[in-house]
Amino acid sequence: MTYRHPDRAQIRVDDVLSALGNHVRLAAVRVLDAGGEHNCTSVLEAIGVTAKSTMTHHWRVLRESGVIWQQASGRENLVTLRRDDLDARYPGLLDAVLTGAREDEALETVPTHLW
Amino acid sequence: MTYRHPDRAQIRVDDVLSALGNHVRLAAVRVLDAGGEHNCTSVLEAIGVTAKSTMTHHWRVLRESGVIWQQASGRENLVTLRRDDLDARYPGLLDAVLTGAREDEALETVPTHLW
Repeated sequence: MTYRHPDRAQIRVDDVLSALGNHVRLAAVRVLDAGGEHNCTSVLEAIGVTAKSTMTHHWRVLRESGVIWQQASGRENLVTLRRDDLDARYPGLLDAVLTGAREDEALETVPTHLW
Repeated sequence: MTYRHPDRAQIRVDDVLSALGNHVRLAAVRVLDAGGEHNCTSVLEAIGVTAKSTMTHHWRVLRESGVIWQQASGRENLVTLRRDDLDARYPGLLDAVLTGAREDEALETVPTHLW
């Protein structure tokens, strides 16, 4: 199976934002950003999502917006963050998003009476 | 009518991204970013949206995610970008998004045979 992806010039910022604007997809992108090539199942396990069909939808949204490459390789399904393309088209965007996600997470672990 | 807004600490990056990840809402935010206080109707006219009920939904998404302040003032309904809050929580994010939107627009005006 060959997946279709937008070329770098076809990527649009509203599609990227919409793709990243979901906590499951954002969690998946954070796993991919930690580096290396991943298969769909390992990311699924890393973020604690068990519904494979739901994740299939999320991969499609990430792929069609230009956020990830996805390719079948034997029985595996590999996913990689398109960091070069995103950084080239939208300098600073991905870093700001990933830093923001980490900050949000840190905030959520602070007891609310300390806010 | 008083609208409810999240406090700065309640803002979450996935909500912000989801709010900005729509071409109508992104166009509205670009108008607000150009500065000044706007009323809903003037933004509607600036971006060429005529369906007021649709826009009511968009304002709600932008408000509840923490992207804008919205307040009734007499017969007017005023909207302002929460740039201070967004820049404080997610440094560089809004600028990267707005620059990206401008770049996308520029790309779309280039004849496709020059891509």
